[in-house]
Amino acid sequence: MDVYEKSLELHKEHQGKLEISVKVPCDTKEDLALAYTPGVAACCLKIDDDKENAYVYTNKGNTVGIISDGSAVLGLGNIGPSAALPVMEGKAVLMKKFADIDAIPLCLNTNDVNEIVSICKALEPNLGGINLEDISAPRCIEIERKLVEEMDIPVFHDDQQGTAIVVLATLINSVKLISKKPEECKVVISGTGAAGSAIIKMIHNYGFKNIYAFDKNGFVSKQNMQSYDKYKKELLNYVNLDNKDYNSIEEAMVNADIFIGVSVKNLVSKEMVSSMNEKNIVLAMANPEPEISYEDAKSAGAYIVGTGRSDSFNQVNNLLAFPGIFRGALDAKATKIDDNAKIAASIALANLISDEKLNPEYVVVSPFDERVVKYVSEAVKKACIKSGNIRG
Amino acid sequence: MDVYEKSLELHKEHQGKLEISVKVPCDTKEDLALAYTPGVAACCLKIDDDKENAYVYTNKGNTVGIISDGSAVLGLGNIGPSAALPVMEGKAVLMKKFADIDAIPLCLNTNDVNEIVSICKALEPNLGGINLEDISAPRCIEIERKLVEEMDIPVFHDDQQGTAIVVLATLINSVKLISKKPEECKVVISGTGAAGSAIIKMIHNYGFKNIYAFDKNGFVSKQNMQSYDKYKKELLNYVNLDNKDYNSIEEAMVNADIFIGVSVKNLVSKEMVSSMNEKNIVLAMANPEPEISYEDAKSAGAYIVGTGRSDSFNQVNNLLAFPGIFRGALDAKATKIDDNAKIAASIALANLISDEKLNPEYVVVSPFDERVVKYVSEAVKKACIKSGNIRG
Repeated sequence: MDVYEKSLELHKEHQGKLEISVKVPCDTKEDLALAYTPGVAACCLKIDDDKENAYVYTNKGNTVGIISDGSAVLGLGNIGPSAALPVMEGKAVLMKKFADIDAIPLCLNTNDVNEIVSICKALEPNLGGINLEDISAPRCIEIERKLVEEMDIPVFHDDQQGTAIVVLATLINSVKLISKKPEECKVVISGTGAAGSAIIKMIHNYGFKNIYAFDKNGFVSKQNMQSYDKYKKELLNYVNLDNKDYNSIEEAMVNADIFIGVSVKNLVSKEMVSSMNEKNIVLAMANPEPEISYEDAKSAGAYIVGTGRSDSFNQVNNLLAFPGIFRGALDAKATKIDDNAKIAASIALANLISDEKLNPEYVVVSPFDERVVKYVSEAVKKACIKSGNIRG
Repeated sequence: MDVYEKSLELHKEHQGKLEISVKVPCDTKEDLALAYTPGVAACCLKIDDDKENAYVYTNKGNTVGIISDGSAVLGLGNIGPSAALPVMEGKAVLMKKFADIDAIPLCLNTNDVNEIVSICKALEPNLGGINLEDISAPRCIEIERKLVEEMDIPVFHDDQQGTAIVVLATLINSVKLISKKPEECKVVISGTGAAGSAIIKMIHNYGFKNIYAFDKNGFVSKQNMQSYDKYKKELLNYVNLDNKDYNSIEEAMVNADIFIGVSVKNLVSKEMVSSMNEKNIVLAMANPEPEISYEDAKSAGAYIVGTGRSDSFNQVNNLLAFPGIFRGALDAKATKIDDNAKIAASIALANLISDEKLNPEYVVVSPFDERVVKYVSEAVKKACIKSGNIRG
C-alpha cells in the first residue's frame, strides 16, 4: 500500500482523526451537579458579570477555530468545504500534538466574504483565536483584514503569515552565510497570491528592500497596474520600482541573491539558477513539486536551497510557525498577532540554529525539533505583551 | 463550600470541561504523512467524488453542534452567548459520557433567526447533527422548523422535543397505573413556550386528545386568539376547544387526571391538586423550583408526582432523551428525527420499567440507569430506518 491507500485505511478505521474528551470528573450525580446543573450556573453568572471570565471558566482560551471554505486546498484547489475537512482535521491534529491547542475544524459552506466574516464574528464567544486556512486569494486577504479589525481575538491566516514567518526565518539565517545585509540582497519572488504577498511585505518590513515580484502575468510594476486589484496595488509599495522593468523572470534572476518561489512547479531552469550571484539562495516552495528540485538547483550551483518537501534539506514548513504562534498568542491572551510578533517568531526560529551549526544544508530547523514551539511561543507571547495587544 | 463554589473551583482548575483529543497515531513523520499531507489528499478526493464519504473518512458522522444564542438559559434567562458557554460545554460533557458523541459548543453572538439559520447551514459540512439549546421562544420554533426543512442532517431542539419525549414516556407508564386510556384522561397543562407547545403536540399525537392549555395570559382558546403568534395559533389544533372556556387554571384542574407544569414555581396549590380526580398525575417541572413540591403534591393526595428535580422520585429529566436520540440518529445516518422516532424513544423509555416494577414512585427510570442510551438509541435508529429518513 502506498501512502494514499494507507491514509484512506487509517481515516476509515478511526472515522476521522479527532474526538472530544472530557477533562473533569463526571461519573456520579455529584460530579454532574458541578459540571452541569445546578453548579454550572455560578460560572455563567461570573461570565455574565464580566465576559473576560470565559477565559477562566471555559475552554475558550485554549480553543482555536480552523476556518476554511475549501476554495484553495493545497495541491487540490477548490474542492469545497466537505472535501477540505480531512485537511482541517489534520491541522487540528497538529495544533494538539505540537502545542496542546484545542482546534475545531469549521469548514464553511459559503464563499461569500461578508458571510464568512459574520460567521466568524458570531462564533467569537467560543474561540480564543482563529486560523484561516486554504481560502482563495484575494478573498482570504479581505476576510483576514476585516476579522483582524473587527474581532477581539487573534486572527491568523496560515497560508499568508505562517509561510512568510518561516521564509523570513530561513532568510535571516541564509544571509548570515553569504555575509550580506538584507538591504544588499537582490530578491526575486515568483507568486503574489496569499503566500507571496505576505512574504513580500514581511521580508520588506524586516529589511529586504530590493524585491522584484512576478505573478502569472509577468512583472509586478506600475506599467502593468491597470489590471491589479487593490491588494496587488498595495504590493507596489513593497517592491523595487526604481530599476528597469524586466521582461521575464529569467532576466530578473541574473545577478540575484535570492529567489523565492511560491508559484508553480518546474518554473526555474538550471540556467536561471546559474545566472544568479555566486553565493545565492533558492527557496522553491511550490507544493508538492517545487519550482526547481533541490538536486537540480544544487547541481546548477545554488549555495543554499530550501523547498517545502520533507525529503531534502531545509524544509520551509508552516508547521514551524502556527503551533508556536497560537500557543504564544493564547498564553498572552492576545487580541492581535501584529507585525512585531510575527518578526519575533521569525527571529526566534532563526536563532534555534547557532552560528557554529549554521551551514547551507541547515538554515532552518526541522519541525520535529522539540524546541520550536517553546521558543516561538515565548517570543510571540513577549511581543504581544510588549505591544500591549493583550486582554484587560 | 457549596455546590456553586465547588463548581467555580472545578471550572477554574481545568479551564473549562472539554478538550480535543487525537485518535490516530501522530508521533513520527510517517504518521503525519498519513494523518496530514500528503496522504490526507486521498481522503479529500474521495469526499470530492461523493460528499457522503465524509461519513467514512472524517468525524462528521459522530459530531453534533450544540447551538445556542444564550437567550433562554434554564433558570438564568437571557444571559447571552458567552455566559451560556459553561452550560453548552456541560451539555457536550453529557453527550460524550452518556453516548460517546463528540459535541461542539457553538454559542452564537446573534439573536437573528435568519442569521442563526444561515450559520447552521454553513456549518453543515462538519456536523452529523444539530442540537438547538436554550434559545427563546418563539424564535427557537422558527429556527428549528427552518433547519429541519433546509438541512440534510437531523436537527433537534432539546428544550422542545427532549422534554416532550420524557414527559410522554412518564405519562405512558402513569396511565397504566391509573388504568385509563390516554383518550380518557383530562389533561391540564400550564406553559405553552418551547417545552409546553412540544409536549401538547407530542402527547396529542400519541392519543391524549383532551388537553386544556394555559399560558401566562390565561386559557388558550379561540376567544383569546387575536393576540397569538402563528405558533400559538397552531396549538388550537391540539387542545380541546369543544368544552367550556375556563376562567382559571384552578377551574380547569377540577376533575382533571393529569397536570403538566412547564411554567413557574408555586403556581399550583394543594387545594388545586385535591380537586383533581382521585388517581391523578402531577408533573410539576418548572426549574429549579416546581409548580408544587413533591411533598406538597403528595400530601394533597396526588397519586403520581414527577418533577425536574433529582432529589425526589420520578425525575423528568431531558438527560433521558437527548443522548440516546442522537446516538440512534447518528448510528442510522439519519437525515431527520421525525415524530415516529420521537414516539419510539418515549415508548422505549417507558418500557424500561416492567409492569411488575411499575409503581407511583417509579414511573420513569433514572438517567443513570445504564440501559437508557442503548434502548432509546436502538428504538430511534430502527424508527429512522423504517421511515426512510436515512442517507443514501
